[in-house]
Amino acid sequence: MQNIKLQRTTAPKEKPNEDKLGFGQIFTDHMYIMDYDEGRGWHDPRIVPYGPLSLDPSAMVFHYAQEMFEGLKAYHTGDGRVLLFRPDRNAQRAENSCKRLCIPPVPQEDFINAIKTVVSVDRDWIPTKPGTSLYIRPFIIATDNHLGVHPSLSYKFLVILSPSGAYYASGLDPVKIWIEDDYVRAVRGGIGEAKAGGNYAASLKAQEKSDAEGYAQVLWLDGVERKYIEEVGSMNIFFKIAGKVVTPKLNGSILPGVTRASCLDLCRHWGLEVEERRISVEELVSAARDGSLDECFGSGTAAVISPVGVLRFGDEVMEISGGGIGPLSQRLYDTVTGIQTGRIEDEFGWTVEVK
Amino acid sequence: MQNIKLQRTTAPKEKPNEDKLGFGQIFTDHMYIMDYDEGRGWHDPRIVPYGPLSLDPSAMVFHYAQEMFEGLKAYHTGDGRVLLFRPDRNAQRAENSCKRLCIPPVPQEDFINAIKTVVSVDRDWIPTKPGTSLYIRPFIIATDNHLGVHPSLSYKFLVILSPSGAYYASGLDPVKIWIEDDYVRAVRGGIGEAKAGGNYAASLKAQEKSDAEGYAQVLWLDGVERKYIEEVGSMNIFFKIAGKVVTPKLNGSILPGVTRASCLDLCRHWGLEVEERRISVEELVSAARDGSLDECFGSGTAAVISPVGVLRFGDEVMEISGGGIGPLSQRLYDTVTGIQTGRIEDEFGWTVEVK
Ligand SMILES: Cc1ncc(COP(=O)(O)O)c(C=O)c1O
Ligand SMILES: Cc1ncc(COP(=O)(O)O)c(C=O)c1O
Repeated sequence: MQNIKLQRTTAPKEKPNEDKLGFGQIFTDHMYIMDYDEGRGWHDPRIVPYGPLSLDPSAMVFHYAQEMFEGLKAYHTGDGRVLLFRPDRNAQRAENSCKRLCIPPVPQEDFINAIKTVVSVDRDWIPTKPGTSLYIRPFIIATDNHLGVHPSLSYKFLVILSPSGAYYASGLDPVKIWIEDDYVRAVRGGIGEAKAGGNYAASLKAQEKSDAEGYAQVLWLDGVERKYIEEVGSMNIFFKIAGKVVTPKLNGSILPGVTRASCLDLCRHWGLEVEERRISVEELVSAARDGSLDECFGSGTAAVISPVGVLRFGDEVMEISGGGIGPLSQRLYDTVTGIQTGRIEDEFGWTVEVK
Repeated sequence: MQNIKLQRTTAPKEKPNEDKLGFGQIFTDHMYIMDYDEGRGWHDPRIVPYGPLSLDPSAMVFHYAQEMFEGLKAYHTGDGRVLLFRPDRNAQRAENSCKRLCIPPVPQEDFINAIKTVVSVDRDWIPTKPGTSLYIRPFIIATDNHLGVHPSLSYKFLVILSPSGAYYASGLDPVKIWIEDDYVRAVRGGIGEAKAGGNYAASLKAQEKSDAEGYAQVLWLDGVERKYIEEVGSMNIFFKIAGKVVTPKLNGSILPGVTRASCLDLCRHWGLEVEERRISVEELVSAARDGSLDECFGSGTAAVISPVGVLRFGDEVMEISGGGIGPLSQRLYDTVTGIQTGRIEDEFGWTVEVK
């Protein structure tokens, strides 16, 4: 593991009002950077004052989107500790994303150490109000000054931090989700399971369409048959159908969410029947019609659990859990956020303390 | 059309040796920039000394790859004129790419004027040796400092210029192409027909594989059935089968190449039978076996025409035109490059002079 140099800011910024944090718009005093150069590998990890990057206009990231990111959070516990939630999972996923995008992976221990160290330096920035957290954004960009299409020979790995507001102002709040059968996010053989910038650029147009229809997020179908459920804009998706917990199988085109894995572990631990498998949109429509679609919720770092009150597919508007919050959604939300913030004992060893 | 402000460099760089230009590594003295801000639209077009961009680490382009580019060339004619080749096509395609990626399009006349003006300012940088040219790279990046996934509210449009060497050192040179049936570049409903960074990031892994096998570029199959021919890494693809010129139909997942359109126009003008349609890889294999696969070539701005001597699919190695250069490839290459450099009369009104 490499030693991180620390250069502290001489002009600390004022901390924001915790009631007006929003998401991903305010950044802390410091950031972590490490460089990669062909032949030298990853080198010079350092924490420096948060500030602009200076890049040549020909830098590959601007042209060929050779870039990947991760997302996780640091939480304040009631008793003054700071916890990360399963950062090893993000480190592993980052490595997979890098491999798919021909980016030299950051060693997992350096990845985790980067996060721990920069969070600890900017510890005072972690908000403390219930539901708030410090959003952590590790990312890698290709920096070769070359317009040829090939993997870059130089990169930057950064970790930036953003204090974020409570996702739910007053308790869980169900969302309406639009099932998209025209635009496609990712396909088998593509980069869907990588946390690659290109997947998100590809998703904007359908999101615009669902916004216009008054829906919060898009639920994607598979790119081959446009028939099987994949995932939501920035969440994985779960259903409770006839008493069973069902979620799409990791098939290469959906992101393997850390929250998804944790929900599966909890459901199994609770003795619920769980299935990871293909789910067709027709199956959902008929389950909604015959009353066996008990619950639907999204899982992701931002909201943790997002109960789905309405699913829309073409002209079919499916109301779920009476448009409200199902009991499994509530239980998972309470348990995961409880573990994340130290209110509930962490039997699984998921949390990592930042000293 | 907006007026472009010009700030000339006070430190002009030395011009490179025309024999050692390569591709996309040397940049001229100036660049064009225009900014977009929600509410103001595209504003402040200017030409400034070529130099780094300063961007916040949270700029959306680094995270969600909301970025698009174009590529075209300026050519010196023997009689001292400078010609662009069909820049209106690039302007139109840029607009389409922008729409797909939720980027506010640059008005086409500003797009073309940007190119003409910056090329004229750096006119001395256009190399003159046969086969050389000035590569023009217009591109747009999303610059909002915000980690939310949504279309950015601010952008930069740039045009940078790179003198490039002759693609072929000594006449046309056939390449070996690898038909990829595992990795997928783009799919129906995706962003394949946009010149979006994400498509290129997605292509690197298969390119790495074909490099390792000793092949120059990847020929992609469709994402749905992995059965129909799409296009090459940075070229469209043509076949001559049993006397007919055949190329994949624009289906939404392949890039509508300017060179492709020009080849089709020329072939039709010459009275050849031309088909734009689906072509399965099986059709190619059997045409190669029964001797009716007369020719194969790629078309794109970089090489103009790239004759394909070998196509490989799984264990099937198809040698085409005896591994050499077919007569149609040669004729198209001579005609297109002739028009581009003013050696052949431009009956089609394709060239635009830069004053
Ligand atoms: C496309 C997509 N799917 C799923 C998720 C959920 O993953 P996680 O639970 O690791 O946050 C995310 C993001 O966080 C995402 O962007
Ligand atoms: C994926 C792809 N297909 C085809 C082409 C050919 O297009 P054009 O003839 O406009 O250069 C290019 C690039 O230039 C490309 O990147």
